[in-house]
Amino acid sequence: MRLLEELLEDQRAKALLVLARASHEACLAPFIGPARLHESLLIWPRDRPPRLAYLSPLERDEAAASGIRPLSPEELDVARAVQEGYDPVELWSHVVARAAERAGVTPGRVALAGGLDAGLAVAVCDRLAADGWSFVPGAGIVERLAKRKDAATVGAVCRVAAGAGDALRRVAALLAAAHAGDGVLELGGEALTVGRLRREIALVLAHHRLEQPEGNIVAPAEEGAVPHTSGSDPRPLRPGESLIVDLFPRRRLFADVTRTFCVGPPSDELAAAHAAVRRALERARADARPGVRGWQLQETVCELFAERGYETPISHPGSERGYVHGLGHGVGWRVHEYPSFRRKSGDEGRLEAGDVFTLEPGLYHPEAGWAVRLEDLHALNDDGLELLTPLPYDLDPRAWRQL
Amino acid sequence: MRLLEELLEDQRAKALLVLARASHEACLAPFIGPARLHESLLIWPRDRPPRLAYLSPLERDEAAASGIRPLSPEELDVARAVQEGYDPVELWSHVVARAAERAGVTPGRVALAGGLDAGLAVAVCDRLAADGWSFVPGAGIVERLAKRKDAATVGAVCRVAAGAGDALRRVAALLAAAHAGDGVLELGGEALTVGRLRREIALVLAHHRLEQPEGNIVAPAEEGAVPHTSGSDPRPLRPGESLIVDLFPRRRLFADVTRTFCVGPPSDELAAAHAAVRRALERARADARPGVRGWQLQETVCELFAERGYETPISHPGSERGYVHGLGHGVGWRVHEYPSFRRKSGDEGRLEAGDVFTLEPGLYHPEAGWAVRLEDLHALNDDGLELLTPLPYDLDPRAWRQL
Repeated sequence: MRLLEELLEDQRAKALLVLARASHEACLAPFIGPARLHESLLIWPRDRPPRLAYLSPLERDEAAASGIRPLSPEELDVARAVQEGYDPVELWSHVVARAAERAGVTPGRVALAGGLDAGLAVAVCDRLAADGWSFVPGAGIVERLAKRKDAATVGAVCRVAAGAGDALRRVAALLAAAHAGDGVLELGGEALTVGRLRREIALVLAHHRLEQPEGNIVAPAEEGAVPHTSGSDPRPLRPGESLIVDLFPRRRLFADVTRTFCVGPPSDELAAAHAAVRRALERARADARPGVRGWQLQETVCELFAERGYETPISHPGSERGYVHGLGHGVGWRVHEYPSFRRKSGDEGRLEAGDVFTLEPGLYHPEAGWAVRLEDLHALNDDGLELLTPLPYDLDPRAWRQL
Repeated sequence: MRLLEELLEDQRAKALLVLARASHEACLAPFIGPARLHESLLIWPRDRPPRLAYLSPLERDEAAASGIRPLSPEELDVARAVQEGYDPVELWSHVVARAAERAGVTPGRVALAGGLDAGLAVAVCDRLAADGWSFVPGAGIVERLAKRKDAATVGAVCRVAAGAGDALRRVAALLAAAHAGDGVLELGGEALTVGRLRREIALVLAHHRLEQPEGNIVAPAEEGAVPHTSGSDPRPLRPGESLIVDLFPRRRLFADVTRTFCVGPPSDELAAAHAAVRRALERARADARPGVRGWQLQETVCELFAERGYETPISHPGSERGYVHGLGHGVGWRVHEYPSFRRKSGDEGRLEAGDVFTLEPGLYHPEAGWAVRLEDLHALNDDGLELLTPLPYDLDPRAWRQL
């Protein structure tokens, strides 16, 4: 793997070392296929294939499914260490040293990443330093390796996105069937609440075998106006208000998609914001090509919004009104990964074929209590941009039915 | 909180510091109620209430839901740091130092825990060391604080367990309705596979608003005989073979429960193992009282199995046949937490009121290709042991229908 060599060279590190509590962690998952492990480590020397060490002998079949040559607990002498009462710091120090030896990596500088508890990692590295090891942050290397997805990985994300799309269609169907009674939306004689939508979303996703380990956002009006507020289950939905539904489920890989609804006629302000966001999304999509920086797209979108009189992070840094966040982010092993759309970024801020990323302009007005966000997920292929979330954009859920 | 003071005193640490990538991490979740945050940190001085710092201004409402006095990104001067292009090591070093200052903690020795990337944590602590900070592992302190659950937390686990129980009943119903055709179980004209059971489990759990962030185990015969093998979706189920179904779903808190099925008459060997496991479970449950060590229960169960001629981790350390694992583990913020059932353990190895834990004896025979595990979840209350998973134990799924 040429890229790994380059990245390690940049850091003057002789290997990448990932210490994981569980294999579904984003630092390990890109490398080990369907294997499901608990405590485990990956050591990847600059010029040789990686080795995967695992600590529980119960997981030998799982480790074999990784496609990486395993280092078993027997080879690492784990049972003796446990027998002798090693504490976690002693055990991990022992395992790292032994795994490195087996992988042919002598003490020196390595790039470290992974979800092992921070306090444990600090103590383990402290102990290993006495034997000549030193450590530089390696999470960026993992993210760079994970940025460019192969066709199978993009396909897997696409299927997750399809499940999320089904859940959004179900939300639209429920909203379209609701009636406005006494200022609150009702369905089947009961108030339609955030919690009820969440239950339906969970059922549709479960049907697709999707999980929501990071939750979701179902946020009406004032709740949606603070972009990361997830929304309160008991909150009844009301006609005329905005409703942001942002889903980011996972089946090994994540997808991420957002739509905004309004049952009944929207205010002029909300309708205008929706049109502006829609236009910004189309413009960003038209400009997303290999070689373009994420930040360039953000600048274009900010200009568009500014022309229409909205505040932006460029014109009004720190404002809570108008367009208040970044334009997008990579999606895959994490909900937020590379490519980056930040101003300050290196190669990870440049779009390239194999990237999977969102574009998600939005407008927010906490005082007035409305919000609009439209988020699509895309794969950048050699022959252009592929939309992984082909869904309606309409505020009116009844318009979704006709498609 | 007296216990925190004692635990910090033991480590000669002046505060507990938790660095989190996301608030649902087990090191942070026990302390912050329903709040959902991304990058955040908790600093808890020995003699004062904790403070919760978060890095994204978009999450101010979520932070407020934690019940802990927040430290906002504005107070931590995050925007300026980002503006000036701080890298993650610089940003976190800055944020930790600033949060400590605001919480009234001067440089010195602190207990560190949390899911911040290991390589990043090592670099941050290295940098802070120059200013007089030093770090000892703090995950054990968090786990000790999380061990004893209050009534509301036990109630929450109990509701998760009820959802898992419903999913097991659904599995039993499907197995009971299946027909043996051509050596393979069929239902509705299709082969009944591991994957089909998994889909039904996911639907039932979704109905209860439960997630499976750690997956599940649906493992027939030879797959179940390796205790942590999760089971292969395409694998068709067969009459007469064992099927282990081990579910550990989450809704903020985890539950954990296992049953073993056999459609059609079991072999004598399987039936005898099932009876032995059932008896071991009852015996362990009868002995589980406040003050008893988990390891004592493990010894009793090993004796019971040894009397019946099965190998155990005490009689045959490292064996892959017979009883090959620990008796149980605490459950709550993680699938595996305190109390511990290991031989080498301190106070965390002693049962006390407020503990929530599994008892899960099992017997395995990889060569013969069968396995039995029965796992119940319990809460140890002041007035005795409460069973949180009241379900049938029968191998025969038809027996489940009659209850």
